[in-house]
Amino acid sequence: MAVYTDVAAEDLSRFLAGYDIGALLSYKGIAEGVENSNFLVHTAKGHFILTLYERRVAERDLPFFLSLMEHLAGRGINCPQPVKNRAGKVLGKLAGRPAAIVTFLDGMWIRRPSAAHCGALGEALARLHLAGADFAMRRDNALSVAGWRQLYEGCRERAHKVDRNLETLVGAELAVLEREWPRGLPQGVIHADLFPDNVFFLGDRLSGLIDFYFACTDTLVYDVAICLNAWCFETDHSFNVTKGRALLANYAKTRPLSHEEWEKLPLFARGAALRFLLTRLVDWLDVPSGALVRPKDPREYARKLRFHQKVKSARDYGLIEP
Amino acid sequence: MAVYTDVAAEDLSRFLAGYDIGALLSYKGIAEGVENSNFLVHTAKGHFILTLYERRVAERDLPFFLSLMEHLAGRGINCPQPVKNRAGKVLGKLAGRPAAIVTFLDGMWIRRPSAAHCGALGEALARLHLAGADFAMRRDNALSVAGWRQLYEGCRERAHKVDRNLETLVGAELAVLEREWPRGLPQGVIHADLFPDNVFFLGDRLSGLIDFYFACTDTLVYDVAICLNAWCFETDHSFNVTKGRALLANYAKTRPLSHEEWEKLPLFARGAALRFLLTRLVDWLDVPSGALVRPKDPREYARKLRFHQKVKSARDYGLIEP
Repeated sequence: MAVYTDVAAEDLSRFLAGYDIGALLSYKGIAEGVENSNFLVHTAKGHFILTLYERRVAERDLPFFLSLMEHLAGRGINCPQPVKNRAGKVLGKLAGRPAAIVTFLDGMWIRRPSAAHCGALGEALARLHLAGADFAMRRDNALSVAGWRQLYEGCRERAHKVDRNLETLVGAELAVLEREWPRGLPQGVIHADLFPDNVFFLGDRLSGLIDFYFACTDTLVYDVAICLNAWCFETDHSFNVTKGRALLANYAKTRPLSHEEWEKLPLFARGAALRFLLTRLVDWLDVPSGALVRPKDPREYARKLRFHQKVKSARDYGLIEP
Repeated sequence: MAVYTDVAAEDLSRFLAGYDIGALLSYKGIAEGVENSNFLVHTAKGHFILTLYERRVAERDLPFFLSLMEHLAGRGINCPQPVKNRAGKVLGKLAGRPAAIVTFLDGMWIRRPSAAHCGALGEALARLHLAGADFAMRRDNALSVAGWRQLYEGCRERAHKVDRNLETLVGAELAVLEREWPRGLPQGVIHADLFPDNVFFLGDRLSGLIDFYFACTDTLVYDVAICLNAWCFETDHSFNVTKGRALLANYAKTRPLSHEEWEKLPLFARGAALRFLLTRLVDWLDVPSGALVRPKDPREYARKLRFHQKVKSARDYGLIEP
């Protein structure tokens, strides 16, 4: 939950005068998102989301994110669509921060996803990958295998504060993944952070995808692996094969996976687990003691990593290669 | 900024089924309010605010607050109106907390109020006092003179951590106010926390009052004094007599103050300054080190108190008794 930068009504009114979305009627800071400040804005023409980009998001990446949302929305993906100002631009400045206005999406994220939700997610993810295929811009994934060692070196000596086996677990896994990380599989735009809180449902229908601020160009099946980790484990840390099957089957129905993509899925799942283990570990160790915002527990992802290490083939995720 | 209790979409949908306000379309936690968890809820019938009452608000006081809002809205005060569920009740239970739904008000709070805003506030405050005159329920003000000594005793020994003169300043002032606090002036419903962030404007028009969770039965002119403190000082700590005059003149036009109310205004202004000085001091000393939420600086109110101590008569607030 976060609003890092307050915005005065007077300043926001002036900012909105540069858009054709009517006069400001109300705005409220939203207690969601950990990277940026978000406001729900009501104007004479409807509801919008205003985002002020904080330091953790690199300003040079904003055109990629905003153009991507525009591109995807143009191809039928229900995602926030950047609103152009009168000068035809989607990026402005407000309260000293880069700022953008996007359309508001109805829908709620599901705290306890069912297999049906996982199935809907699988299909939406495949549609996202297909819709992104002709997106012209490129953004390297700073949080893929090439970026992990630096994260590891920055926190390995303190990792024992969280779990005494963590330094060894991560160090050994990192060596394996750096050696065996698959290259040459189909690449394209991936969301890279499609956790349940970034997927909206209305009833059982998936109604939208949000938060494209980790999106990048990377191996598509890595995105599938991130979702397996984020959606198919139970709160008792067991892997739910019914959910895994629903996610994978529905993904493959829309975008069939090649034999090699199936084969490498367990390795990507290990990589996806290591990626979130590392960033959570860094956040956990860096948070000031007594802070009111508790970072997410990195050990959750250590358990997921250990699960994937024991997986023999993609069949263990619930699905025989179709 | 605060959402202390998360609510699952599944649980909120079930809760809303008890109301006649249509199906849930979206909800977002709002980064406002420090006492309760607030959500902006969109349903098929419009926008509403859902409040989950946290521990700092006594459950036995909730009927007073909710009935008061209903009473005031019925008398033309633009404030959030509690929505009754199908059983005719305004108070329910959600996520283990007492919960209520109120109507959504458009409007923005003004970060840098002008004299015109102060004038509009004065009139609205007087209208609030008149509209509350026939409200049947009663709630004592725990944060008036009778409650201050307990707050003081709980923090006096640590007060020097904030300012080495604070213990003496507060101790001496408390003795004066306990002795001289005026009794017998007109009483009624007061808002007791009508800071700029609780007053909405649309353009220059005051469009609504919110957050009645400190409302109580107390001397009306004490509420005026709270507003003088909250609205008429500049960020450099000087008192702006133009703003003071606008607030007082517009109040008195709608609800004339008696000679005795005028005469005692400086004493109430001292009391109002002491009340916020004390609660801010307690919050300041109690906050865990490293916390991300920074409490408000109690020294701001020490400065205001010192200003009022030097005031000779209500004329010093910018207005000759009308």
